[in-house]
Parts: sequence; structure tokens; C-alpha cells
Amino acid sequence: MNFKEQIEKYQQLVDQSLDQYLEKENDENDILYESMRYSVFAGGKRLRPILVLASYELFDQEFKEALPLAASFEMIHTYSLIHDDLPAMDNDDYRRGKLTNHKVYSESIAILAGDGLLNLAHEILLKEIIHSSDPVRTAKSSYILSEASGVKGMIGGQVVDILSEGKEISKNTLNYIHKNKTGALITAAMVSGALLAKASEDDLINVEKIGGNLGLAFQIKDDLLDITGDESKLGKKTGSDENCDKSTYPKLFGVEESQRKVEELTKEAKELLTNYLPKSQFLLDLCDYLIMRDH
Amino acid sequence: MNFKEQIEKYQQLVDQSLDQYLEKENDENDILYESMRYSVFAGGKRLRPILVLASYELFDQEFKEALPLAASFEMIHTYSLIHDDLPAMDNDDYRRGKLTNHKVYSESIAILAGDGLLNLAHEILLKEIIHSSDPVRTAKSSYILSEASGVKGMIGGQVVDILSEGKEISKNTLNYIHKNKTGALITAAMVSGALLAKASEDDLINVEKIGGNLGLAFQIKDDLLDITGDESKLGKKTGSDENCDKSTYPKLFGVEESQRKVEELTKEAKELLTNYLPKSQFLLDLCDYLIMRDH
Repeated sequence: MNFKEQIEKYQQLVDQSLDQYLEKENDENDILYESMRYSVFAGGKRLRPILVLASYELFDQEFKEALPLAASFEMIHTYSLIHDDLPAMDNDDYRRGKLTNHKVYSESIAILAGDGLLNLAHEILLKEIIHSSDPVRTAKSSYILSEASGVKGMIGGQVVDILSEGKEISKNTLNYIHKNKTGALITAAMVSGALLAKASEDDLINVEKIGGNLGLAFQIKDDLLDITGDESKLGKKTGSDENCDKSTYPKLFGVEESQRKVEELTKEAKELLTNYLPKSQFLLDLCDYLIMRDH
Repeated sequence: MNFKEQIEKYQQLVDQSLDQYLEKENDENDILYESMRYSVFAGGKRLRPILVLASYELFDQEFKEALPLAASFEMIHTYSLIHDDLPAMDNDDYRRGKLTNHKVYSESIAILAGDGLLNLAHEILLKEIIHSSDPVRTAKSSYILSEASGVKGMIGGQVVDILSEGKEISKNTLNYIHKNKTGALITAAMVSGALLAKASEDDLINVEKIGGNLGLAFQIKDDLLDITGDESKLGKKTGSDENCDKSTYPKLFGVEESQRKVEELTKEAKELLTNYLPKSQFLLDLCDYLIMRDH
């Protein structure tokens, strides 16, 4: 299976899983399910769930065991985008070329759809623990997601990002934002997938380093695309960080240095991944894909 | 220990637990912790965590085992209030006589503080499972909370409540709102506490019936206080349901019938509770307290 086929296989399985978890059950609140589904199926790349599955496959073949965990990552990522886009936050009308959730369903439903996805992700994790043959291991892999998405992770990063708007910030603060707002969930996807697949302590340390590099490279690349990208490919206005007066890596270090940093981080990650060949071929290709992407 | 002393003992333990979980750790996002703490320590009655602990004590003495679960209930209850009060939702400036979270910390921080509390509640639950001597039982009691607070529980009820504003709604819809928006979490508090204390299947059925009755009685009593209550005691404007054009039990059934319903539900709950005397004395007193309260 080549890279493109492999990524499509993962995406398809993740989408099926998400579809099942978000099946409508109750007439009274159909609109809540519609709203959650709208954003979950709005064309995301499924990067986080794919990292869960690919990282799992480095250590065990039965990667379908990790599908509920993978779906939970995507739900938490999606809820964070819905809340990020709200008028009180980044106030974005479009994401991936489609109207944002609150523009279609109203602010109140968008807030509740976000809450619903965050909650549902944890319901799924808890149910998996109850039915697991190794509940403590399953709980540990779930905890990695939950901690990464929480106040010491993604939410913490988001708060500091908002507080930093319009201010000169230090490199430390920018690193804090990148590490937590985007990086934490990407790193956690790889570590929790590997942990669920019974990776050793040493392997988990490697995977955490790989995930940390990919997370930071991904965020810097995103910042670069906001400056240099093609609006029609991104599905949103470029320069939006500039308009929001956000601090970004290119703003603090320049475009060239940022590009160099993305390459360096990716190179280090790839070096570590070569230890896991041939199983890591997909992740090696994914590194190249992420560095080359135009959206 | 009399009722007042017992309730204060529970409140103190819950507050200590919440205080520890919400200790600031990081300078960068102190304001997020401040915002979460502001609403968590804004004078709530701690009804849900007290129900967890008291229900646990019907079946086992070591109720401190249930403190993390109890704290998680209060965090989830608090997050739901923060998000409910937002301008896009009920748009309330005051709660319990204090400015609402977004009035003090801004809308964006209030949204993230709510997200943070919902997430933190689940981090606590997952950590407890990892360190539990019976991880599956602990996961089952956590799942009861998570399901009750989710799209098939509290969030679902909240959505239908919002969609019903300004509309004539059926008794079925009103029941759906009450059962889910408030009732689900109150019932879940009692059931998950009892489950954690290893209650039998038969006892869990009883506890669920008791919790269901108390949850509905509590909500109808709240609706009644909104009409007949004293603003200075409630700490918020009365008539706010009317102003929001909300459907309430008194509006559909009248004040007298609503009062009768509260009494009937409480009487049934008390009858079941007498089976667990003398251990249920506190919960019997709590029933009387809830029916007589003026705020």
C-alpha cells in the first residue's frame, strides 16, 4: 500500500468510527447532533487520529483497537476549533472554506456542540476502559489525551494565546503557546497510541520526542502558510493572524528562520523514526507530506 | 452529628478537595485558574457532591474515596452554569448575588474556564481509575457522570431548553428538559456514589428512583422560587424565566399543582429512603431541607 492509499484507509476508518459515534438518537435534540456532525465532517485532515493509529501500528498490528481513542482525539480537536471560531474568541466566519459552526447554527448551539464533543470524547474513553482487557493501560492512554487537552495543555495554550493578542511577547511565551495550543494534542496522539499498543518506556520516550517535533513543526508551518499560503487552498483568509495581531513564529524569527526550523525539527523526527523501519515508513512519508503541504 | 453539622462537614471536605484540584501551577495562565476558582467558589450549595458522598455512605463508611468523584460533579455543574450565563445563552449578569464569570473575566476566558472545568473533571476521574484497586468499578461510576453530563443528558436538555424559548411546548418536552438539564446530574450523583460504594443492583435501582424524584422536585422548586422567591435570598432577579420566555412547570401546570408535585415526589423519595435507616437519616433531612428552602 502506498502512502496515499494508507492515508485514505486511515481516514476512512476514522470517518466510519466518527459517523457511528455521532448517530442521531433523539428527535428532541437532532440539531445538536447536526451541529456536531457539521464541524466533525467539515473536511479535516484527520491528522491527530491518523497519528494515533500510525503510532499504534509501530508496536502492534491490531490498530483497530485504537479507533475509539483516535475518534476521541478528532472530537476534542473539532470542539476546540468550534469554540476558537466564536465571536468572543477569534471571530472567524470561515474554516476550510465552509461557514463556521456558529454562523450556521447560532452561537448558543455552537457553544453546546463544542461542549458536547468534549464530553462525548470522554464518554467514549470511559466506555473503552470498562470493556478493556487491560483497564489501567487503557485509562493511562486516555489520561494522556485528557491532560493534553486540558488547562495544562491545549486550553492553557489557548488562554495565553488570547491574552497575548496585540502584545509584544517573549520567545518563551510563544513557545508556551505553540507547545500547548497545538503541540500538546499532536504529541499526545502519538504517545497515547503507542502506549495503548504496549510500547516500552524507552520507545515511549522516542515517540514523545518525535511527536513533540512534529507538533511544533506543524504549528510553525501553519503560521508560514498564513503568510505565504494560497487562500483558495487554505479555505480561509490568509493574514488572519496578522489581523488578529497574533504573535507567530515568522513574526518573531522571520520567514527564512521559520522555514529552517520546520526542516530541522522534521529531520530530527525522521532520524528517530528510521529506528522503527519498515513499520515507520508511513510516518516518514507523513513527515514529508506535512513539510510540503500547501494547506 | 445533627443535619447542619453533617452538611457543613461535607461542604468543607468538598471545598478542600476543589481547592487542591484548582491550585495554580503556572504563571502563564493564572487568570484561567482564577476564573475557574471564581465560579467554583461563588457560594454554591454543593448539592451534587453532597449527594455523591451521602449516597456513598448508605453503603460504605469510607466515603472519602468518593471525594474526587464528588469534586468532578461540582466542576461539571459549575462549567454548565458559566456557559449558561454567557450572552449567547441566558445572558445573565448575576448569579448567587455575584457578577457572572464573563462579566468579570470576559467572554473568551469564561468559555475557556468552562471548557477547562469540564476537561479537568474528566482528568480527575481518569486518574482515579488508574490508581483504583477496582478500575472497572471506578470507571463505571465515572461513566455515569460523563453520560449524564453529555449530549444525552445535561447538554441535550440545555439544547432543547434553548430551542423552546418563546414557544408553546408540550408536557413531554418540558419533562425532557427537566429530566435532562437538571435531573440527570442529580440522579447520577446518587447512583455513581452508590455504585462506587459497591451497592447491589437492587439498591442501585432504589437509589436511581430516589435521585430521579429529588432531581425533578429540585427543578420544579427552582421554577417556583423564580416566581415566588425573594430576590435578596436568591441572589438573582426573580421572574427571569418569564423574561426569557422559558417554559416552566408552574407555567404549564400552575403554582398549586407544582407545589403538590414537589411534595409528592419528595414523599416517595423519603419512603424509599426509610428502608436505609439509620444511615439514611441525613438524606431524609436533606429532602425536607430541599422542599423548604427559600433560595
